[in-house]
Parts: sequence; C-alpha cells; structure tokens
Amino acid sequence: MALQFWNNKDQFSRNKILAFNHSYHGDTFGAMSASSRSIFTKAFDEKLFEVIFIDTPSEENIGKIQLQIEKYKNEIACFIYEPLLQGAGGMLMYESKYLNELLSFLKNEKIICIADEVLTGFYRTGKFFASEYMLNKPDIICLSKGLTGGTMALGVTACTQKIYDAFVSDDKTKTFFHGHSFTANPLACTAALASLELFANKKSLARIEKIINRNEKFIKNLHSKKYKNEIKNIRHLGTIIAFEIVTSQGDKYLNNITEVFTKFCLSEGVYLRSLGNTIYVMPPYCITKKQLKKVFETIEKFLDL
Amino acid sequence: MALQFWNNKDQFSRNKILAFNHSYHGDTFGAMSASSRSIFTKAFDEKLFEVIFIDTPSEENIGKIQLQIEKYKNEIACFIYEPLLQGAGGMLMYESKYLNELLSFLKNEKIICIADEVLTGFYRTGKFFASEYMLNKPDIICLSKGLTGGTMALGVTACTQKIYDAFVSDDKTKTFFHGHSFTANPLACTAALASLELFANKKSLARIEKIINRNEKFIKNLHSKKYKNEIKNIRHLGTIIAFEIVTSQGDKYLNNITEVFTKFCLSEGVYLRSLGNTIYVMPPYCITKKQLKKVFETIEKFLDL
Repeated sequence: MALQFWNNKDQFSRNKILAFNHSYHGDTFGAMSASSRSIFTKAFDEKLFEVIFIDTPSEENIGKIQLQIEKYKNEIACFIYEPLLQGAGGMLMYESKYLNELLSFLKNEKIICIADEVLTGFYRTGKFFASEYMLNKPDIICLSKGLTGGTMALGVTACTQKIYDAFVSDDKTKTFFHGHSFTANPLACTAALASLELFANKKSLARIEKIINRNEKFIKNLHSKKYKNEIKNIRHLGTIIAFEIVTSQGDKYLNNITEVFTKFCLSEGVYLRSLGNTIYVMPPYCITKKQLKKVFETIEKFLDL
Repeated sequence: MALQFWNNKDQFSRNKILAFNHSYHGDTFGAMSASSRSIFTKAFDEKLFEVIFIDTPSEENIGKIQLQIEKYKNEIACFIYEPLLQGAGGMLMYESKYLNELLSFLKNEKIICIADEVLTGFYRTGKFFASEYMLNKPDIICLSKGLTGGTMALGVTACTQKIYDAFVSDDKTKTFFHGHSFTANPLACTAALASLELFANKKSLARIEKIINRNEKFIKNLHSKKYKNEIKNIRHLGTIIAFEIVTSQGDKYLNNITEVFTKFCLSEGVYLRSLGNTIYVMPPYCITKKQLKKVFETIEKFLDL
C-alpha cells in the first residue's frame, strides 16, 4: 500500500497489518479493516482486508504474543494500536510496561508502529500523549478529537522524518495524493491552535490534575464494598474512569442497560453515554468541581436504585 | 455490505458496484474502490475491491453500455455516479439525456442509484442539484462542500424513504453503527443552516445567474479563432468552465504545465489550480464582477504569452 514508497526494499514486500483484538480505529473501509471484527463491522466483513489480530499484552501473555508474531514477522508492514486505552472497544486499559516490550520487539523487526491517539491524545491519559508512558515511540501518530478541543472536525497524521523522507522525491508518482475537500480547513486549524495555546497555560494543566484527583477519590468510593454486587472491573487512567455494571446479559455493546442508564442520567440532568454495560466518565477539561460532583452523584444514585 | 439490510432478498445477493471511468469519489478505501483506477489509487490497487467500470453515456455508446451492464445486471447492487460533471477526473462533462436513459435502465433492474453531488450540489451546475436535470432521481445522494459554503467540514448522505425504512427495525444488529468523532458537529450544522438560508435569498440566485452569464461570454471569447492552437475541449456547465491547454505532453494530471500556469496566475494575484493541463474556473458565489473579470483576464494573459 502506501508502503510502496518506503525506500527499504525489505519493507516494500510486506503487506500484512497487525492490530489488537477489541480495537476500533474508525468507520472507513481501511479503518474498519484495522479494527477487530465485531457487530460494528459485521455487515462489511467480506470486503475488509486481512489483518492479524493479537491480544493486548500483559505479564501472562507477552511471550505467547511474540511467538504468534514471530510466524509472520517478515510479512508484517505495520502495527496499529490505541496506546494503553481501547476506547470504543469498551474503555479497556492495559499496562505500559508490556506495550513497551511489544513495541521494542516490533521495532527490532522493522515493523512500523502507528499509534492511534485520536482518543488518548491531549492529556486524556494524564500525559500529553499516551505514548509518553512508553520508551518506544510510534513512527506514525494519529490525532483528532482533543486537537481542536472537540469543537471542529480536524485530524492530523504525524510521522518521523524517516517516513516523511520516503515521500520526498522528484518522481511525481511518489506524491501523497490523498487530500479531502476540507483538508487544512483554516477555521479548524485556527481552533486547533487556540486549543493548543490553552495547554500552554499552567491553569489548564492544573484543571486536568484536579479531574484526575477527583476521579481517584471517586474510584476509591466505588471500590468500597458498597457496590461489590453491582459493578466490576473498576479502572481509571488519567481523566478517564470506567467499570462494568453486572447484568444477566453479560458484557456486550447491545446490553439493554445502556438505555436505562442514559435515560436515568438525563432525567437527572447529566448526559452519560455508556458502551453497553460499560459505564465511563471522560469529562471535558472545562468541567467544574460542582459539575463533576454531580456526575459522580448521579452514577451512585443509579447504582443505589 | 450495508445492503444486507435491504429487505429485498434479490438485492441481498448482489455484491457488485458499478461506476464510471474517470470517476473520483474520495480517498478512503471504499471511496477509492468506487473511483476509477489511476495514479491516485495506484499504491492501493491490490487492496481495493472489484468494481465494474463503464464510460459516461453518450448518443454513440449508450447501447454498448447497456449491453455491458446486461451481463452483470443481477449481481450489481448499486451504481455510483457524479451527475453531469466528473470533477477531479478532469472536469469532464456529459449529457443529461443519456445519463437519464442509463438511470432509467438501472432503476428497471432494481439497481440502487447513488449520486455523488459533493461537487455538483448547491447550484454548481446551475440547478440546486445536478440530479434535477434528469427525470430519474437517485436513491441516495452524497453532499458536502457547498453544504456549508465550504467553510466547515460537513457531509450528508440522504436517501429515499425505502432505504431509510430498511434500517428501521427492533433488531439491534440492523443499527447503522457508523458515526465518527465529529458526527453532527453543532458548529458545522449551524454553518450549513446559515448557508442554506442564503440560498433562500433571491439575491444569491441572481449572483449565481450572473456568474453563469459571465462564464458564457468568456467561453464565446475562448471559442473565437484566437486560441485555436493553444486550447481545446472548451466546455461549461452552470458556474463551471473548463478546457485543456494543448501541450506536447498530452492530457494528463502530471502535465508540467500546471506548475507554470499556477505560478503565473499567482504572480498576477489570482489563485487557479489546474488539474494537469485542464484549466477550470469554479468561483465562490461571492465573487464580484471585477474579481471574475480579473480571473478571465489572467487566463487570457497566460494564453497570450
């Protein structure tokens, strides 16, 4: 694919993509192909191109994953991953230590590492990029959402000098022809610059720090024995907290609890959208102490029902 | 694909797409697949799914095209087309009479007709939608660009009641799961509403009418013998005019004349981006009489060099 531009001849012959189970990278055909197969992709499965899927790494499975990749290592062109947090897949979190180990292994095999930081970027996980938690950095990074503070549609794909250089040529057929109607939209770029400027303000970082602290306090409360029959898998990373509501339907996106929960929250004046029985809080950084308290109280009120 | 939702069992088994040669529908994998193969898609060709390509219809080839389709008619799910004007493919124009005939034939065969009016919509061709030039209307219409007056990224895919109804079900697996980070962005929707309001103003339509009249006058001038060795294929449709510059390199996107031309225009204070040796003028509707005159004068000045 685009890798035909890659100067490395070894890389040129590689045509397989590696991705995580439970990953979700978007709804276009390419992004769907790189996402794990699910109810979201079912209608399109026969047309999606083949991808090798692996589990997110942990102490238990990291060895097994490396063996699994070993088989295809000379055929894999790139690895796409949501670092530390898989969003639409169910707000699943995994440890930086083993992702770092996996990235190290893949980089040794000259596999291009593509971090999908569309959700995790811009302090969502507590650092500017989730990739900062790992020593091994991505070769390509995908950004959106927080880029404009969610105000205007904009995405950025940034890459290392090495990848950039692979496209620089007098040969016009090497042109990166892709560009849509609203590429580099001046208004959206201006919104992004304004949003980035806010991050340069210490007050913004202090706000984010406060959200993280308040999340941690709430998490402690959830961990108290009070809700042990109602919820499970309580987890948090930076500004995000998530857990599953225990229901007879099991853990799935089409769990009916989502409608009951969202309706209840709205009746309390709070908009929380769950992913099936996965409840998560991912507040805008401008949320006030009072507003976040109201969110937490609403969740507790629901669990107390 | 999405057609699995279609209630018609006959339709369900159809899995081929029909599209025009020289078509360009976008840069995502799906949109690229439906676009004709070219230097734009070359790096991705092996991964694109199969599409049946036909020429745009004319008096000469309409019979041949119908015979070509006849072979696959029970396998074709849908037909995607840029009505009357193929934009990025080279500002190619074709007649409504034969497109109408083709649509009639396809609709008889229960093939879903999808009009890509991303470029042609919102009076570009002189009518609100180019599809208004044909008696046979599309089942699905794709809109963007003019939707927000080009100010903010937004697209709309509208469809007939019949297609909408095929998704309405208590069966949650029939949900149309697609939706990106900025779906229904409130600012972009507001911009679209404001732009649509402008079209309700007669003054806007009068402006568009004036651009069309001025284009026609300029076209007459180009048709004069003065430039018969310099240019060819002079054409116009609504607010758009186009022609090819005759060069020794032939008609192609990578024709070097594009750099010379754009550079010359910029030095004159005018930004005109050609598609290879295809020069086109597609002005914003807010262009003044003086500004459009300057555009035309700049083109003539270039041709007089």
